[in-house]
Amino acid sequence: MTTAVATGMQELLEELVVAHRPRGPVGSVPASIPHLGRVEPTSFGIAVATVGGDVYAAGDSDVPFSIQSISKVFSLALALRQDSANTLWRRVLREPSGTAFNSLVQLEAESGIPRNPFINAGALVVTDVLQEQRGDARGQVLAFVQALSGSSEPAIDGAAAAGELERSSRNLALANFLADFGNLRCDVRQVVEHYVGHCSITMSCRDLARAGTFLADGGRVGPWAGEPWSALTAEQTRRINSIMLTCGLYDAAGEFAYRVGLPGKSGVGGGIMAVAPGRGTVCVWSPGLDAKGNSVAGAAALADLSSHLGWSVF
Amino acid sequence: MTTAVATGMQELLEELVVAHRPRGPVGSVPASIPHLGRVEPTSFGIAVATVGGDVYAAGDSDVPFSIQSISKVFSLALALRQDSANTLWRRVLREPSGTAFNSLVQLEAESGIPRNPFINAGALVVTDVLQEQRGDARGQVLAFVQALSGSSEPAIDGAAAAGELERSSRNLALANFLADFGNLRCDVRQVVEHYVGHCSITMSCRDLARAGTFLADGGRVGPWAGEPWSALTAEQTRRINSIMLTCGLYDAAGEFAYRVGLPGKSGVGGGIMAVAPGRGTVCVWSPGLDAKGNSVAGAAALADLSSHLGWSVF
Amino acid sequence: MTTAVATGMQELLEELVVAHRPRGPVGSVPASIPHLGRVEPTSFGIAVATVGGDVYAAGDSDVPFSIQSISKVFSLALALRQDSANTLWRRVLREPSGTAFNSLVQLEAESGIPRNPFINAGALVVTDVLQEQRGDARGQVLAFVQALSGSSEPAIDGAAAAGELERSSRNLALANFLADFGNLRCDVRQVVEHYVGHCSITMSCRDLARAGTFLADGGRVGPWAGEPWSALTAEQTRRINSIMLTCGLYDAAGEFAYRVGLPGKSGVGGGIMAVAPGRGTVCVWSPGLDAKGNSVAGAAALADLSSHLGWSVF
Amino acid sequence: MTTAVATGMQELLEELVVAHRPRGPVGSVPASIPHLGRVEPTSFGIAVATVGGDVYAAGDSDVPFSIQSISKVFSLALALRQDSANTLWRRVLREPSGTAFNSLVQLEAESGIPRNPFINAGALVVTDVLQEQRGDARGQVLAFVQALSGSSEPAIDGAAAAGELERSSRNLALANFLADFGNLRCDVRQVVEHYVGHCSITMSCRDLARAGTFLADGGRVGPWAGEPWSALTAEQTRRINSIMLTCGLYDAAGEFAYRVGLPGKSGVGGGIMAVAPGRGTVCVWSPGLDAKGNSVAGAAALADLSSHLGWSVF
Repeated sequence: MTTAVATGMQELLEELVVAHRPRGPVGSVPASIPHLGRVEPTSFGIAVATVGGDVYAAGDSDVPFSIQSISKVFSLALALRQDSANTLWRRVLREPSGTAFNSLVQLEAESGIPRNPFINAGALVVTDVLQEQRGDARGQVLAFVQALSGSSEPAIDGAAAAGELERSSRNLALANFLADFGNLRCDVRQVVEHYVGHCSITMSCRDLARAGTFLADGGRVGPWAGEPWSALTAEQTRRINSIMLTCGLYDAAGEFAYRVGLPGKSGVGGGIMAVAPGRGTVCVWSPGLDAKGNSVAGAAALADLSSHLGWSVF
Repeated sequence: MTTAVATGMQELLEELVVAHRPRGPVGSVPASIPHLGRVEPTSFGIAVATVGGDVYAAGDSDVPFSIQSISKVFSLALALRQDSANTLWRRVLREPSGTAFNSLVQLEAESGIPRNPFINAGALVVTDVLQEQRGDARGQVLAFVQALSGSSEPAIDGAAAAGELERSSRNLALANFLADFGNLRCDVRQVVEHYVGHCSITMSCRDLARAGTFLADGGRVGPWAGEPWSALTAEQTRRINSIMLTCGLYDAAGEFAYRVGLPGKSGVGGGIMAVAPGRGTVCVWSPGLDAKGNSVAGAAALADLSSHLGWSVF
Repeated sequence: MTTAVATGMQELLEELVVAHRPRGPVGSVPASIPHLGRVEPTSFGIAVATVGGDVYAAGDSDVPFSIQSISKVFSLALALRQDSANTLWRRVLREPSGTAFNSLVQLEAESGIPRNPFINAGALVVTDVLQEQRGDARGQVLAFVQALSGSSEPAIDGAAAAGELERSSRNLALANFLADFGNLRCDVRQVVEHYVGHCSITMSCRDLARAGTFLADGGRVGPWAGEPWSALTAEQTRRINSIMLTCGLYDAAGEFAYRVGLPGKSGVGGGIMAVAPGRGTVCVWSPGLDAKGNSVAGAAALADLSSHLGWSVF
Repeated sequence: MTTAVATGMQELLEELVVAHRPRGPVGSVPASIPHLGRVEPTSFGIAVATVGGDVYAAGDSDVPFSIQSISKVFSLALALRQDSANTLWRRVLREPSGTAFNSLVQLEAESGIPRNPFINAGALVVTDVLQEQRGDARGQVLAFVQALSGSSEPAIDGAAAAGELERSSRNLALANFLADFGNLRCDVRQVVEHYVGHCSITMSCRDLARAGTFLADGGRVGPWAGEPWSALTAEQTRRINSIMLTCGLYDAAGEFAYRVGLPGKSGVGGGIMAVAPGRGTVCVWSPGLDAKGNSVAGAAALADLSSHLGWSVF
């Protein structure tokens, strides 16, 4: 990458911070997760990590935040990586859900097989798979994102996890329901605990962007992850990207596909990770959420970035 | 009651035993409750307790069996009796459910308010109310049926309850779901335990018929229950009877209303209790179930009895 | 019936008129059926026809009103009467629906077999059966209620029917959906026309009460219907009564069963017909509806009447 | 394009024909559309039209077939093109449906607003919009595909349309249901007729590929469409592509996104049109369908083609 381009990217990110950092509270923060309400509402960070190994960052890009559902991408990748018996896709489908992300109706209609790994039911099954594969699902996911980002900073926010666990009735309902259909095999309470645990991982935009570049590069990790290795095969990477594009933004997947045109995954912590295949991975963070649970400023900034760079796949 | 009538009733019950006792296994027993599978499949008992204080019984009428969902009638009656603040009907509706008895769909659509107290979700709420009112819901229901039947024989089958608790994923899902909507207030696991506990009460047909006569007599208990007292007001009794008639037989309430024409409540243990207002209460038991979860021989015998005596309310 | 009793009944009805006739508009009238909005809101009529052949009436008991869904009872009775091949119950179930009366969801889930003959889908199937049996379903139902009431006054309000037909998109949707499942066999549009037609029959409380006594008397019609004949067998009558009790009041069947304790059928024209088996049939009419679509004043008056006479079956 | 590349593409298509043309009947053909059953089961055609104006074709690429739901792409594009008041997106959403393509449940839950323009309900609304805009929706769509492909061969198969109309109960149900919610404004029967009409357009792979290149080229039509013009803006094109990717393959959108990695739209006539943004448009046709309603051989061939050319967007 020439200096000119590098400068261009850095300038673009700085401009996006100026354009999109909220001047005050926007949207809402989830009432059910108290610690998320304590974040400074004008926070805004953005980082791009390219497949060439460059990292650009601006705004609050080094502030750790709760990655929440973005952890579903990494837990899925890890479960696939370890799925030597190739059984994961028998326990969770890969189709858009078309309903609120935590609905039980679909699950009942389809005999306990979640529509995709990004709705809560699907992510609980993936966590159960990790727990079955090697135990300590939460710890596995943490070690994985640390390795992928070449950083020891990603950590589990224990107090946050404990607070969320107390408000996990819906997830406990889902998990028991899955167990009733035989699609949860480890201890139900433990699976929910580990699920909430890996959702409570805190990471900065910079580290998340670095951790996600394998999705933009056919499975190959970035230079920050040590000696070259592949987290997944190119085929597995395509699989995850296609699921992100069709199911990654809760009930706004279609809208995001249009506005941003990239596979993405959001979390109610205000983060969004987007993948530009062959180019790099972007992470943006700002805590105020829209009615569908996605970062207001984050989605707008990604749309701008994608438009400026011509990165939309459409 | 004249001797002639008494003889007539006794003879009728004997004839019903001859006509309806299965010659071998009929229907099915619930796979999810192992101890129910160990019951002798040709068991058949029947008892009638009149508002006049007479009791007639035939067949295996003194054999204790698992009353299962029939306990929902007694836990509801007890919760109403103790509902001085009159809040129960804000937490559970009184309308037919029109879906399988353990569906989560309706609950989601109606924000955690179960359609009636006889579907599992509703019975869990009732158990939660008892637990809130005086603690030890299971023990309260047991003491209540002992008092109503004037018998110390009703007991909780601890081993059966423990076995069912292990297979209670669906009920734990329901209970956590209710808790998520704020409609379960005590500890979720404890509520399910007490719910399974009072479903595991064992009683004979004779004791169940005696315990249920207050429903046929405007709330007044039978002479076997000691000094005259009223378990409920006449109005509360009518309320329970109307719910039994519209919702007491799972997804076969309409069919039972037609064939038997009496308020009734069945359990997957093979028991059915039916109430003939102003006349008396009938209990029949035979373990083989039809596809809807109701005793095959029991429902047939009740239809015969109702027809012979002209007891149908229609 | 002694004069004393007769006087008692007549006085009771007069008192009910005084107590329940609205002083002004109460509840609502259906926006989708314009002609119903033109009825005087303080209208209130009541009539009782006994199995002994006496008729008592008070208030606006001779004013014809639109019977709307009450016609479903008569079309069902007629279809059963003519169902020599005994195929009706293969095409419609007899269980409570537990959802709004015009929902398509249940129909889709259960492959086009309506839950009961009183939800719109079920009534369309019954109309199709009549149309198949002898053609001119609308005319058949009219002739039937004229014969049952011994009156030539029941008539089809053609202008009202035409107005309703124009707003029948939902019924056309239901009918086409049933046809798609093979459960509607005559011309779809014609079936809806005849359905709307028999719902647009106008009758007075007096005539409706007289027409309905066969349901209280094992199928036998009243003396006003000419030479003694039976509209249905006693068994068929019980069948209809049990369906009325579990499904006759839209989504308030449970509440009505408790408050009134009698099989009943309401219509959005403000009429309610209730059956006291062995005693007689009551018809009450007042146009203001509650949120569930049942006459506010009518339901209250029936509860009072049932309570005064001790007619509740519970 | 150099001759070498051209040769490469042509050879690839020839190889795909050899590899994927069925040797006999595979999958199924829709029972509800009789004329589709008369197509030769071993038919297989494929064509690619590039944004540079080249067209490659192999197999039965000049045989006209029933485009069925692929017409939904063109009717949507045309409605958008003419939507000067910008009201279309108030009447139909743009999110994946996650249920069978003709379900009524979602529609009821969301008050008559279809989830996206490619499920039948959504396509009926789009047809209604066309009918409102300029009348003769069917004729408009036909003229549009003729103009886009620069060919007069696309035609409406009147006999097929008439046959389908006779079996359109489900679509009539949907359309009446939409009308009931006020989301269908023209005559219901006429809308269904025009909808079935434009679904009955027959086109060859070659013409379809040519007609679809505007989607790969920011809205610009190919040279075969006469003087340069734009069918849509680049933004509108991206919108349609993102909807195709998330909703274009019925309930297999996720699977197709993974296997092929391109926006696509299938029809039960066995055709699939796929768009490679910036490159070109592919059309493949083979009549045997899988359980989700997509061409078995067609989807396999597209996966191969995408893989060989590296055209997946992921």
